[in-house]
Amino acid sequence: MRINGQHFETIWVDRNNKEKIKIIDQQKLPFRFEIKTLSTFDDAFSAIKDMTVRGAPLIGVTAAFGLYLAMLGKTNDEGVADYISSVCEKMKMARPTAINLAWAVNWVEKELRGVQSVEEARIISFKTAVKLKEMEVGYSNSIGEHGVRLIEEISKQKNGETVNILTHCNAGWLACIDWGTATSPVYKAHQKGIDVHVWVDETRPRNQGSKLTAYELAQEGVPHTVIPDNTGGHLMQHGMVDLVLVGSDRTTRTGDVCNKIGTYLKALAARDNNIPFYVALPSSSIDFELSDGIKEIPVEQRDDDEVRFADGKEGKTQLAPDGSPVANYGFDVTPSRLVTGLITELGICGASEGEIQRMFGK
Amino acid sequence: MRINGQHFETIWVDRNNKEKIKIIDQQKLPFRFEIKTLSTFDDAFSAIKDMTVRGAPLIGVTAAFGLYLAMLGKTNDEGVADYISSVCEKMKMARPTAINLAWAVNWVEKELRGVQSVEEARIISFKTAVKLKEMEVGYSNSIGEHGVRLIEEISKQKNGETVNILTHCNAGWLACIDWGTATSPVYKAHQKGIDVHVWVDETRPRNQGSKLTAYELAQEGVPHTVIPDNTGGHLMQHGMVDLVLVGSDRTTRTGDVCNKIGTYLKALAARDNNIPFYVALPSSSIDFELSDGIKEIPVEQRDDDEVRFADGKEGKTQLAPDGSPVANYGFDVTPSRLVTGLITELGICGASEGEIQRMFGK
Repeated sequence: MRINGQHFETIWVDRNNKEKIKIIDQQKLPFRFEIKTLSTFDDAFSAIKDMTVRGAPLIGVTAAFGLYLAMLGKTNDEGVADYISSVCEKMKMARPTAINLAWAVNWVEKELRGVQSVEEARIISFKTAVKLKEMEVGYSNSIGEHGVRLIEEISKQKNGETVNILTHCNAGWLACIDWGTATSPVYKAHQKGIDVHVWVDETRPRNQGSKLTAYELAQEGVPHTVIPDNTGGHLMQHGMVDLVLVGSDRTTRTGDVCNKIGTYLKALAARDNNIPFYVALPSSSIDFELSDGIKEIPVEQRDDDEVRFADGKEGKTQLAPDGSPVANYGFDVTPSRLVTGLITELGICGASEGEIQRMFGK
Repeated sequence: MRINGQHFETIWVDRNNKEKIKIIDQQKLPFRFEIKTLSTFDDAFSAIKDMTVRGAPLIGVTAAFGLYLAMLGKTNDEGVADYISSVCEKMKMARPTAINLAWAVNWVEKELRGVQSVEEARIISFKTAVKLKEMEVGYSNSIGEHGVRLIEEISKQKNGETVNILTHCNAGWLACIDWGTATSPVYKAHQKGIDVHVWVDETRPRNQGSKLTAYELAQEGVPHTVIPDNTGGHLMQHGMVDLVLVGSDRTTRTGDVCNKIGTYLKALAARDNNIPFYVALPSSSIDFELSDGIKEIPVEQRDDDEVRFADGKEGKTQLAPDGSPVANYGFDVTPSRLVTGLITELGICGASEGEIQRMFGK
């Protein structure tokens, strides 16, 4: 999508040097647009861990390129297999909740199975990372094509009046490679001339909504309004939301959705007000091993300071007094019973084991 | 309650000069404790409007003292009646949602009916303001005595294990004169030696939770943890909340509760997880004229900059980009069907027209 009118993806191979990976520094957005270079495994690991890149699909692709950088960093063929499994193991620890991370790493590891030389490992890991990236772009594009039909339908029902969509966190192209997941249907609708408006949850504590979703919607000219996370229920009670569209960091085979903390509260409000609640996700974020999201998905706890301070254009400002403990859970799980449907690259399906199975044949 | 070990109320008449009203500057908390002097009607009006004082009961008492200051400001008896009705009318505009403001102003106005001289108006308005203040302290104290029984019961059921209470915004003594509404049962429980812990919603956009509730709980030594507003649902899903206790800015005669934006989302989560959701309120905040909170209660929209920026110890920092519009609704309405009960100065009653009528005989 566009930044200052120019097309960008969130991660790419440097045109002049195949050994350098370029990313947009998402810690700096929306107030500074900076491109960062990843040259080593550690660069990629840190970029994931400190959220310079974030969003399930982008984390996966960054991890894959990070493994490629790890292969570049090894100078001889001794113990290649052990080296591969050790860097793969380490990469998975960068962030525990996003399933794409493990999924992408496992894929690269599988492709590297039996590899004897560093040279071969470099070629294969590079190819795999590039392929993963292309796949994610394709997924996002397809999610948009399927999801836009929901928006078109609401627009028709409203005789062309503005379709108001509420989203939480950033499941935009900045979380992916291009298009996004939850935003992809919105961009497609906007490009088709459908009158859409997005309510953007600011998404404390890290404000991915006000900092990233608002930024990318503004760059594409999509009408939107930033709101505190507390606001959605009130808007829904007053008929000001037609559709809730969010992303997912991990979805169980039964349709439970693990996403940014606070998603569950919006799902409850949508249900209470008969508003459709859809989750847009590539199938790469479905964890077919899990059947009970609330019990089985580990929810990472992040640094207290993200809550104690707000971090904006002018730097950090303290909100909670020193004497008060703070807790910072990264995600919550929305039970499938609250999810109207899943928008995937293969189409839209219900959030149930049966429908997911039918869609993905697993 | 205590600040740095010393007993304070949120508003008092200066010991050395009956014409000066003292308040705690709540805009500066928790990082600076400053006392401010109100000398004129405009001082009191601004203190309410800019939230130097906030919280339904405190707003009402400040308004009453503000009318007393207005009488001090009038130098002759000419047109006293018109003057009274004009300042009363103006004072009600300071903040539209809190019912206590209109209630307190109407009370003072009624007491001043027929008054011929400024001197008389001064005496009566002063007396009325002092009486209102004493009443609110009594209300808060009684709310605590009734509400603590709920906490005691949960503590017993848990064999003395920690009772975890979630609260939203600040319905503490800083919102009242002393004790608070939602916090009053907590302070009483803590003083009785019951093991309590409070999850404090930070309450964006103004952070009354992290700035005020956390501060006052810390000052009284009550164990607590500050959380982003997005967190409560996750905690409830995992059995980490035993009771939700919030305040109310206005309650309809049918038991709909208008409180800080985001309260409704916590009520939905409490219901979804079978957790009792109680609202603590003095009967002065019941609006017996209203039967449908969602339709009938006007919800104030506040300054965009409260959302666009976070305002903390080091000053403001910008969170949303300049190009993105922002919306800032102050309150939402929790329908009575989600409210387990109302804790009032007369006792605990169900959130229904019948039970409220029985309790208050109206």
